[in-house]
Amino acid sequence: MSSKYKSLKEECYEANMELNALGLVIYTFGNVSAVDRDKAVFAIKPSGVPYETLKPEDMVILDYDNNVVDGNMRPSSDTETHSHLYKNWESIGGVAHTHAMYSVSWAQAQRDIPVFGTTHADHLTQDIPCAPPMADELIQGNYEHNTGIQILDCFKERNLDHNEVEMVLIGNHGPFAWGKNAAKAVYNSKVLETVAQMAYLTLQINPNAPRLKDSLIKKHYERKHGKNAYYGQ
Amino acid sequence: MSSKYKSLKEECYEANMELNALGLVIYTFGNVSAVDRDKAVFAIKPSGVPYETLKPEDMVILDYDNNVVDGNMRPSSDTETHSHLYKNWESIGGVAHTHAMYSVSWAQAQRDIPVFGTTHADHLTQDIPCAPPMADELIQGNYEHNTGIQILDCFKERNLDHNEVEMVLIGNHGPFAWGKNAAKAVYNSKVLETVAQMAYLTLQINPNAPRLKDSLIKKHYERKHGKNAYYGQ
Amino acid sequence: MSSKYKSLKEECYEANMELNALGLVIYTFGNVSAVDRDKAVFAIKPSGVPYETLKPEDMVILDYDNNVVDGNMRPSSDTETHSHLYKNWESIGGVAHTHAMYSVSWAQAQRDIPVFGTTHADHLTQDIPCAPPMADELIQGNYEHNTGIQILDCFKERNLDHNEVEMVLIGNHGPFAWGKNAAKAVYNSKVLETVAQMAYLTLQINPNAPRLKDSLIKKHYERKHGKNAYYGQ
Amino acid sequence: MSSKYKSLKEECYEANMELNALGLVIYTFGNVSAVDRDKAVFAIKPSGVPYETLKPEDMVILDYDNNVVDGNMRPSSDTETHSHLYKNWESIGGVAHTHAMYSVSWAQAQRDIPVFGTTHADHLTQDIPCAPPMADELIQGNYEHNTGIQILDCFKERNLDHNEVEMVLIGNHGPFAWGKNAAKAVYNSKVLETVAQMAYLTLQINPNAPRLKDSLIKKHYERKHGKNAYYGQ
Repeated sequence: MSSKYKSLKEECYEANMELNALGLVIYTFGNVSAVDRDKAVFAIKPSGVPYETLKPEDMVILDYDNNVVDGNMRPSSDTETHSHLYKNWESIGGVAHTHAMYSVSWAQAQRDIPVFGTTHADHLTQDIPCAPPMADELIQGNYEHNTGIQILDCFKERNLDHNEVEMVLIGNHGPFAWGKNAAKAVYNSKVLETVAQMAYLTLQINPNAPRLKDSLIKKHYERKHGKNAYYGQ
Repeated sequence: MSSKYKSLKEECYEANMELNALGLVIYTFGNVSAVDRDKAVFAIKPSGVPYETLKPEDMVILDYDNNVVDGNMRPSSDTETHSHLYKNWESIGGVAHTHAMYSVSWAQAQRDIPVFGTTHADHLTQDIPCAPPMADELIQGNYEHNTGIQILDCFKERNLDHNEVEMVLIGNHGPFAWGKNAAKAVYNSKVLETVAQMAYLTLQINPNAPRLKDSLIKKHYERKHGKNAYYGQ
Repeated sequence: MSSKYKSLKEECYEANMELNALGLVIYTFGNVSAVDRDKAVFAIKPSGVPYETLKPEDMVILDYDNNVVDGNMRPSSDTETHSHLYKNWESIGGVAHTHAMYSVSWAQAQRDIPVFGTTHADHLTQDIPCAPPMADELIQGNYEHNTGIQILDCFKERNLDHNEVEMVLIGNHGPFAWGKNAAKAVYNSKVLETVAQMAYLTLQINPNAPRLKDSLIKKHYERKHGKNAYYGQ
Repeated sequence: MSSKYKSLKEECYEANMELNALGLVIYTFGNVSAVDRDKAVFAIKPSGVPYETLKPEDMVILDYDNNVVDGNMRPSSDTETHSHLYKNWESIGGVAHTHAMYSVSWAQAQRDIPVFGTTHADHLTQDIPCAPPMADELIQGNYEHNTGIQILDCFKERNLDHNEVEMVLIGNHGPFAWGKNAAKAVYNSKVLETVAQMAYLTLQINPNAPRLKDSLIKKHYERKHGKNAYYGQ
C-alpha cells in the first residue's frame, strides 16, 4: 500500500468497519469517507465490497473533483455526494452514509425529527432536517452530485450551521452525517439512529408529545459544546 | 457423500446455514434450495431438521417432478413449491422460504409492501406483491404445489417479471424469494425483511407516507441493475 | 447429587438454561419444571436463583401435592401452578413460565392472540387464550394454586384441548406453556413469543387483518400434527 | 490505587460495566455511583470516558457536597444529582442514570408508566412517576443539583416512598434508579426499561388496557417484599 495515503486509508477503513459493528448497515448499504485537508484528497469505501472482505488498501483516494488519485477499485457510488460536502464545508473531516432502520424510516416518512429530549439536545439544538426528495431533472442528471447540492440547499434555506447540525435525512433515501473526522461521522450516524428510534417511540406513546423547551435545549447543548462546557475530560 | 452432487449439496447447505445466521428463521421455520440446471435436479433442506445438527450430506436431491434422486431424508414439506418455480422459471438458481418476523406480518396483514424508499428501489421497481390466500379447494388439494401455482398466477395477473421482482409474500403465510443462485435467494430474503421493517416503521411515523416517485425508483434501480449500472466492482 | 433424580434434575436444568438462552427471561423472571410420571414427582427451578450460578443439583423435587421430596432450596414461587397442571393433565411432561416481552404485553392487554397466519396454525388451530385476571378472593387465597385452577377453568369454559393448545396467557401476568417434556414446554414458550410478536405487528400494519381461514388452519395443523402428517423425519 | 477506596471504586466500576453489558447505554450516555455511608463519600464514573477504556481506578470519590476526595478525573456531569439523593435519602447505597430507549421515550412523552401487570408489581405498587420538566430558572441555575431537587419534590408531592419506588423518569430527559447498592440500582434500571417496553406494547395492542387491579398489585409486591415474602432463597 502506498505509504503516502496509508494513515488516511486506515482511518477510513476503521470507520467503515465501525459502521458495520454498530449495526448501522447490512451488506454494502453504507459508506464512510475521511479527508486529508493538507493533501486535498479523501479516502472512501470501494463500491459494493462486503465488510467481511474489506481491507485498508481497498480504500480509494480521490480529489475534490472526483478524480481517482490512488487505488484500483471503483469508489462508492455515493462518492460525489461526499466530495461536494468536502468542497463546500471546509471544517468537516469525515462523512458517513447509512441505510439504518429508524433513520431511513423517518426519511421515508418525509418528516424532520423533532427535538423531544436531552439525548437529542446533547448533540444539536435543532430538529434533524429531512431534505425533500429532489426534482426530477436533478435526479435524472448527476444524481449523487445533486444530492450534495440538495443537502447544502436545505441547510441554506433553513439557515442551519453544518458545524452544529452534523446530520441530515434525504427524503425517501436515508441519512448522511459528518464531523471533524470519519470516526465522528460514524458516531453521529449512531446518535442519529438512536434519536430517531426514541422520537418514533415517543410519538407512539404520546402523539402530542411537546418539543423540548428552549431552556433545556440550550442547557444540554451548552454543557457539552458551549464555551463553559463541563462534560468530558 | 456421492461426489456427483457434492458441490450442489454444499451450496444448498451453506445457504440454509446463512438463513439461520441472518436471524431470518427460528427452529426449522425455513428452507433453501439450489438447482443444477445441467443435471436438472435441485438440492433442498430435509424436513424438520434443526440447523445445529444439519450437515451438507443431509441435503436431499430431487428432479423437477419431485422424485428423490439422492439422499436418505425426507425433503422439506415445501419442496413442491420450490420445484414448481424451478420448472417454470428457467433463469432462477435458488429459492428461499422463511417465517421472518416483518415479512410474515405484512403477509398476515394481506398487504403489498409499497416502495417507500431507495433501499427498496435499489432492488426492485415494484411494490412487493402479496398473493392472496388460496381458494379452499387448492388448499385441500396438493397444497405446496398449488402454492407455486399461486405465485405464478400472481405474477401473471400483475404482469410482473420474476427476473426483476425476486420475492413475494403469500397471504397469511410468509415470504418466498429467489435469485440466480441459493445465496442470492437468501440475500433477497434478508433485503425483503429489511424493507418490510422499514415500510412498517414508515407507516407508523406517517400513515400518509407517499410512494417513492418514479424518477427516483428508476434512478436507483438502474444504477445497480441498468445497462449503464455503476454500482459495485 | 442423589442418583435417584439425577436425570430428571438434568432435564429440568437444561430446559431452564435454554429458556434463558432463547432470550425469554431476564434475571429470574421464569421457571421450567419436568415431571417423572413413574415416580410421580417433578423437578423445578429454585426460587430467585440467577441462571449464571444455577446448577443441576439445585433443582427441587416435589410430589404433586407440593411436598419437597429432594433438594435443599426453596422451589419456585410458582410451583403450585405447575403441580396443579401435572395433577390434572396426565399427558403433559413439562411446564414453562416466562415474562417474555410480547407474550406479557398481550396478557396485559387482556386479549386473546388471534390466529393470523400459518406460523400460528403450524402449532395450534385456536386463538391463544388469555384467561381473565382472577377474582379478588382467589388472589388473596392460595394464589399460585388458584392460578392453576384459573388455567383449567379457562380451558373448560372454552372447550379447549390442552393436548392441542399447549399455551395460555394469564391476564395481567404472562404466559404458561407445556408439552410432552420440559424441552417442548420451552419450545412452545418460544413459539408463543414469536406468534405474539407477529400478531402485534400484523395489527399495526392492518388493524382489520382477518383471522386465518379455516381450510388453511386445518391444512397447516394437520400437515404437522394430523394422522397423515408429512412434516419432519 | 489508594487502598482506602479500593473496594468502593471496584463496586462502582463493576456496576458501570454491567449497565453497559445490559444494553442500557451507548457510548457514555449513563453513569452509576456507589456510596460508602461510613466514610460519607461516594464513587462515580468519570465524565465522558468510554466503557472500553474504563478502569476501576478511574472512579472519582466525592463527599456529599461534591468535593473531590480522591481521583484524578472529572466526575460525571450528573454528579450533583447523585449527591443530592445520597444526602437526602440515607437508606440508599447506589444510583444509576441511563438514556435507555424505552425509559427515555416515556420520559419524552411526559407520561407516568401505568402498572399494567405483575412484572411491574413484582417491584413496586405505584405507577412509575414522570417528574415534569423543570422551570426555566432551575434549568439555568445549578441544573444537576436542581434535577435532584426535582426528583425529591416529585416524591413529596405524590407521597411516594423512595424505599419502595426506586426509580423515576425526569420529563424530556430520562430515568434515574437507585437501591441498597450500586448493583441494585443497575438492576432497577433494567427492570424499568423492561417494564417501559411492556407498557408501550400493551398500549399498542389495547389503548384501553386497564390498570392492574389492587389485589393483584398487593399480592405480587408482598410475595417478594412483604413481611411474609416467600420469593427467593
